[in-house]
Amino acid sequence: MSFNHREEHVDDGMLLIQANLDDMNPEWVSYIMDKLFDAGANDVYVVPIIMKKGRPGIMLNVLVEATRLSSIEDVIFSETTTLGIRYMHASCHRLGREFEQVDTKWGLLTVKVGYHQGKLVQYAPEFKECERVAKEYQVPLKLVYEEVRTQFMLQHKKASS
Amino acid sequence: MSFNHREEHVDDGMLLIQANLDDMNPEWVSYIMDKLFDAGANDVYVVPIIMKKGRPGIMLNVLVEATRLSSIEDVIFSETTTLGIRYMHASCHRLGREFEQVDTKWGLLTVKVGYHQGKLVQYAPEFKECERVAKEYQVPLKLVYEEVRTQFMLQHKKASS
Amino acid sequence: MSFNHREEHVDDGMLLIQANLDDMNPEWVSYIMDKLFDAGANDVYVVPIIMKKGRPGIMLNVLVEATRLSSIEDVIFSETTTLGIRYMHASCHRLGREFEQVDTKWGLLTVKVGYHQGKLVQYAPEFKECERVAKEYQVPLKLVYEEVRTQFMLQHKKASS
Amino acid sequence: MSFNHREEHVDDGMLLIQANLDDMNPEWVSYIMDKLFDAGANDVYVVPIIMKKGRPGIMLNVLVEATRLSSIEDVIFSETTTLGIRYMHASCHRLGREFEQVDTKWGLLTVKVGYHQGKLVQYAPEFKECERVAKEYQVPLKLVYEEVRTQFMLQHKKASS
Amino acid sequence: MSFNHREEHVDDGMLLIQANLDDMNPEWVSYIMDKLFDAGANDVYVVPIIMKKGRPGIMLNVLVEATRLSSIEDVIFSETTTLGIRYMHASCHRLGREFEQVDTKWGLLTVKVGYHQGKLVQYAPEFKECERVAKEYQVPLKLVYEEVRTQFMLQHKKASS
Amino acid sequence: MSFNHREEHVDDGMLLIQANLDDMNPEWVSYIMDKLFDAGANDVYVVPIIMKKGRPGIMLNVLVEATRLSSIEDVIFSETTTLGIRYMHASCHRLGREFEQVDTKWGLLTVKVGYHQGKLVQYAPEFKECERVAKEYQVPLKLVYEEVRTQFMLQHKKASS
Repeated sequence: MSFNHREEHVDDGMLLIQANLDDMNPEWVSYIMDKLFDAGANDVYVVPIIMKKGRPGIMLNVLVEATRLSSIEDVIFSETTTLGIRYMHASCHRLGREFEQVDTKWGLLTVKVGYHQGKLVQYAPEFKECERVAKEYQVPLKLVYEEVRTQFMLQHKKASS
Repeated sequence: MSFNHREEHVDDGMLLIQANLDDMNPEWVSYIMDKLFDAGANDVYVVPIIMKKGRPGIMLNVLVEATRLSSIEDVIFSETTTLGIRYMHASCHRLGREFEQVDTKWGLLTVKVGYHQGKLVQYAPEFKECERVAKEYQVPLKLVYEEVRTQFMLQHKKASS
Repeated sequence: MSFNHREEHVDDGMLLIQANLDDMNPEWVSYIMDKLFDAGANDVYVVPIIMKKGRPGIMLNVLVEATRLSSIEDVIFSETTTLGIRYMHASCHRLGREFEQVDTKWGLLTVKVGYHQGKLVQYAPEFKECERVAKEYQVPLKLVYEEVRTQFMLQHKKASS
Repeated sequence: MSFNHREEHVDDGMLLIQANLDDMNPEWVSYIMDKLFDAGANDVYVVPIIMKKGRPGIMLNVLVEATRLSSIEDVIFSETTTLGIRYMHASCHRLGREFEQVDTKWGLLTVKVGYHQGKLVQYAPEFKECERVAKEYQVPLKLVYEEVRTQFMLQHKKASS
Repeated sequence: MSFNHREEHVDDGMLLIQANLDDMNPEWVSYIMDKLFDAGANDVYVVPIIMKKGRPGIMLNVLVEATRLSSIEDVIFSETTTLGIRYMHASCHRLGREFEQVDTKWGLLTVKVGYHQGKLVQYAPEFKECERVAKEYQVPLKLVYEEVRTQFMLQHKKASS
Repeated sequence: MSFNHREEHVDDGMLLIQANLDDMNPEWVSYIMDKLFDAGANDVYVVPIIMKKGRPGIMLNVLVEATRLSSIEDVIFSETTTLGIRYMHASCHRLGREFEQVDTKWGLLTVKVGYHQGKLVQYAPEFKECERVAKEYQVPLKLVYEEVRTQFMLQHKKASS
C-alpha cells in the first residue's frame, strides 16, 4: 500500500528493526545510515547503549514498511557486523505535509508545514536551503532560521486577518 | 478497562508511543512531560539519540493505554515539533502496590511497597515526603532515605518474628 | 520451539522486555545482567534515559523467548527496584552461525562466522580467546584481532582460488 | 572578585568540579542540583558515563568560583555517595546580559539578550514567563516562544530602521 | 609524593587524560580499562560522544598521578586506535577512608566508610563481598545490601547512644 | 608556535572550550561543527548531558590552540545560543603521523600511520577513499577496510622479513 503524504494518515504496516552493535567501527555509521535511506527506510537513528561485559555499543534503529524488510536486512547484514536483527510491528501516524514558500531578504525559501485534523500545527524551515543561504550570504544559520520563521508567521497573520 | 493497582496484574492494552525530535528546543521537554502525564500517560521518558546527518536528537517515549492514544497525540503534535509519531502494542505487568507508614524520628513517613505473587519484593520511600523532611530538618536527603529504609526493615522483622 | 542456530532462521516468538529504573544503585547492573543471561535471556542491554523530574535513569532491555517470560520477570522483580515491566512481541532473524579455526603464530584461534542466504557475511574473532592470548603473550589485544582477521582472510582467499 | 554580569567579561577564577557516581539512587539528582545552585554554583549538569565493570554511572559537574569550593564540597560529600571529587581550573567568558520587554498579545514578556563586543548575538524568551502564559492562556508553549521571538525581531527591525 | 588514603587530603598533582575514539571496536573497552588500572590509573571511565560527521564515538577518561603519565600513554597508544591524547591538570580531594566490619546473618561483611572533616559522611557495602554472599546463599543482591546497611546503622546508633 | 605533525610531539598551548546548550535546535550542530573546524579547531565533539530542571542538553567541546580562542568564540557566539563559554588549559600529545600507500584490488589506497617513540602503533585506512571505493565498486565498506588492513599487514611483514 502506498500513502499520499500530503494527507494525514495512519500506516499500520510498519516495522521497527533493531540491531545491537558492539564490535563495529563507529566510523561507518553515517555511511550505513545513508545506505539504509537509499534502501527505502523511513527513518534511521542510533542509540548509545551498554551491552554485556560493560561494552559501550550502539543500537541501530530502522523504521520501514514491512514490505521492504529484506532490502533493509541485506544492507544491515552486509554493511554492519551483526549476527542477527529483531523487529517489531509498528503503526505510524503522519501529519499531512505541505511545502510553502516565504519571501525573505534572501529570496523565496521553503517551509515544511504539518497539519493535524486540518489545523496547522508544525512549520519548519528547510535545513538545506537555510544552510545554503547562510554560506552564500555569510550570515549565522540561526538568523536565517529566525527570519524564515518570522516571515512565515507574519504571512499567516495577514492571511488570517 | 480499568485495573485495581493494588492487585498484581497484566494489562495487554498498552501502547508505547515514540517521536524523534531533532529540531526542538530541549528547554521545553519537562513542560511537555508534565502535559503528557496530565493527559493520562502511565510513563514518559526521553532517550538521547543520533539522527541522520549526525544530529543529536531526543526520542520521546510515552507508555499509555490504547484508549488514550488520541489525547496523547494531541499533546505531542501541538507541543513538540514532530511531523509524525509511531506506536507499538505493549503489555504491562504491574506488581501489587500498597503504601505503608513507618515511624521515624521525623514522624510517620510513607513507603511504597510492591508484591510479586504475594511476596513483598520492593519497598521505596516516597521521594516527595523525604524531600520535605530533608528541607524542614536540614538533614541530607540520603540520611532520610536510610532512616526510612532501616525502620521499614526493623518493623518487618518484628512482624515476622 | 527450539532452533538450530547453525541454520539461518526467523523466530517469531520473542519478547522485548523493558524496565525503567530511576531509584536503583547502578553498581548492581552487571550482576543483574549475568543473572538474566543465566535465566535464558538471548540478549540484555541498558540504555541511559531521562525520566520524569529530570532523573537520569536506565532502561533495562531483555530479549527472550516468550516461553521464558516468567523466569525473566522473577529475576527483574527480585533483583531490581522496579514496580512493573512492559514487553512487546518481536521477531528475531538470526544468521547461520559456524565456528572456524584459523592458524596464527599463537596457535589455532576461533572465528565466529555468519551466513546470510548461504553467503559468508560476518566473521569475528572470539573475544575470550584473543584476550587470553593478549595476556599470555603480552601483545596488544588489537594486534591479536588483526592477526586473526588477516589469517582468516588469507585462508579464505586460498580456498576460493 | 565579583563581576557585573551586564558587562561582557572573562573570569579566570573558576573551577570545574567533577564527581563520578556509580552507587547512588539517581532519584536524588535534581534535589542535589538545586542544593548546589543554592550553594553558589554557576552551573550544574550531569553526564551519563560507563564506569569500571561496565557500571552505568553519572558524572556530576559543577562550575563555580574558586572561592566557593568548600561550600560546594560540603553539599557533594553530604548529599551524594562519592568518596572523592576532582577539580580543574577554568576561565569563563560571559556575554553582556540584559533583559528587554516585548509587547505580546498576552502582555509584556521578558527576553534575555546577550551582547558580544557590543553586538546583540543572543536573545531568548524567559522560560518561566512563557510557561506561565502557556498554562494561563492554554496555548502551546512553542507558540508563546514563537510570538515572543517574532515580536522581538519586529521591535528591533523598527528600532534599526 | 604518596598519600595515606586513610587521611582526608587534596592531591594537586593529578592529570585527567582524554582520548576520543571513533574507529575502535568497542568490544575492547573493558579489557583496556583493566590494563589502565594495572598501569596505575586512579579512575577510568568512558563517555558516549558524537564526533565529526555524526560518528557515535567514545571518550576514554583516565585520572592518574602526573608521574605516571607515560605508563598510561603506553597503554593507550598500544591498545586503542587513537593518534593523540590530551590532558589537563586536576586536583583530587579524597575523603579519609576506613573499612569497618558489620555482623550480618551471613557473617562479618565489610563496609567502606568515608570521613569529611572528621565526620562520617559515606558508607558503602563492599560490592565483591555482597556479590559472593548473594551467590552463595541464593538471595537477591539488593537484600544483602539492605541488610549490611541496616546493621551498619544499628551498630553506629548503639555506639553513639 | 607551529608543529610538524610528522613528528611525535607535545603541545602545551591548547585549550578545551566547552559550551552547554539547552535551548538550541540540534539540527544546526553538524553545520556548527564544520564552521568550527574551518576556524581552526583541532577537534570538535558533542556530549549528551542533563541540565538543570532535567533538560536534555548537549555540551559542545572544541579543542584548539590558545592563539585561536577568539576565532572560535566568534563562531560559538554567533552560531549557537549560548550566553557564555568556559575553557581549560590542555596539553596534546600527538603521535608522529605518516601516510602510506597500499596496493589493493581497487588500486592504491592510503593508510594513516601513527608512530610512538619510533614504533608503528596505529594504522587506519582513510575513510573518504574507502567510501569512494565502496560506492564505485558496489562492495560493502567493511570489506574495503578489511582488504586495506590485510594488504597493509602483508606489506609490513614482507618489509620486516
